[in-house]
Amino acid sequence: MVLNNEKLQELIRSLRDQKLTVGFAESCTGGALSAFVTEQPGVSDIFLGSVVSYSNEAKVDLLGVRRDTLMNEGAVSELVARQMAQGVRRQLKTDWSVAITGVAGPSGGTTAKPVGTVCFAIVGPSFEDSRKEIFSGDRKAIQQQSVDYAVRWLCEILDNN
Amino acid sequence: MVLNNEKLQELIRSLRDQKLTVGFAESCTGGALSAFVTEQPGVSDIFLGSVVSYSNEAKVDLLGVRRDTLMNEGAVSELVARQMAQGVRRQLKTDWSVAITGVAGPSGGTTAKPVGTVCFAIVGPSFEDSRKEIFSGDRKAIQQQSVDYAVRWLCEILDNN
Repeated sequence: MVLNNEKLQELIRSLRDQKLTVGFAESCTGGALSAFVTEQPGVSDIFLGSVVSYSNEAKVDLLGVRRDTLMNEGAVSELVARQMAQGVRRQLKTDWSVAITGVAGPSGGTTAKPVGTVCFAIVGPSFEDSRKEIFSGDRKAIQQQSVDYAVRWLCEILDNN
Repeated sequence: MVLNNEKLQELIRSLRDQKLTVGFAESCTGGALSAFVTEQPGVSDIFLGSVVSYSNEAKVDLLGVRRDTLMNEGAVSELVARQMAQGVRRQLKTDWSVAITGVAGPSGGTTAKPVGTVCFAIVGPSFEDSRKEIFSGDRKAIQQQSVDYAVRWLCEILDNN
């Protein structure tokens, strides 16, 4: 499986044309979305940075995710994804932010949240939305599908906004 | 060029055996070091998170890098790398931290800091060191060499510590 480079180019173009900036909050993808974007040269006008909040403590300390939300909803939840996206947007003062939190496996799955469950949130000016998806495949495939999904979804939102 | 997976396994084993945690502050590698580590399953015991401080503002706001250091030394400097590593270690409360800041190119190079110049810093308990290296190749090659260098250097330090 290869990441969708064409869609990434579309996203970068779209952000640049509208003079918008973006930042990411990544958990299960562990920095892969940020790395994918920064493999491209000259993206510093649209990409300001990311927080890879792999541990719950990092979600709380760096992104301001609420402990009670983590406890009640679990780290892999749309509500935590929303708080991650809000947090990184606030910290980096970007126009848009994307958050990803999921179970990339191979362990960590439960009946309610099997391996492959990934929650996304996107926050922008007067905009906030979240989604839950279930991907299949091994750890790397789940991480890559998550990265692709995030790129595709933000593209879609920017097109319609 | 392929990342040195064997060395990564050695690093993870070394951290795990000594019950140590690590966090990263990445600039020119844009999350690639974090993504490399989190491609491995079950690393949440040793890896807590990262800050991808791609912009100068992110270096200041998220990592506490000093504006006067950025101004006087430039973002690609050993002193900024040290402040990035100190900052992410303080934020994530990890035992160890690694920072990477450099010129991955193809643009952004100067006579004093040509494309391929990358500064690293590692901070740990009663430990702090920094280095400047000059890598060659295209953007991706420079990013990969930087990731490999960081993994190898931290391994070396943990072995001798």
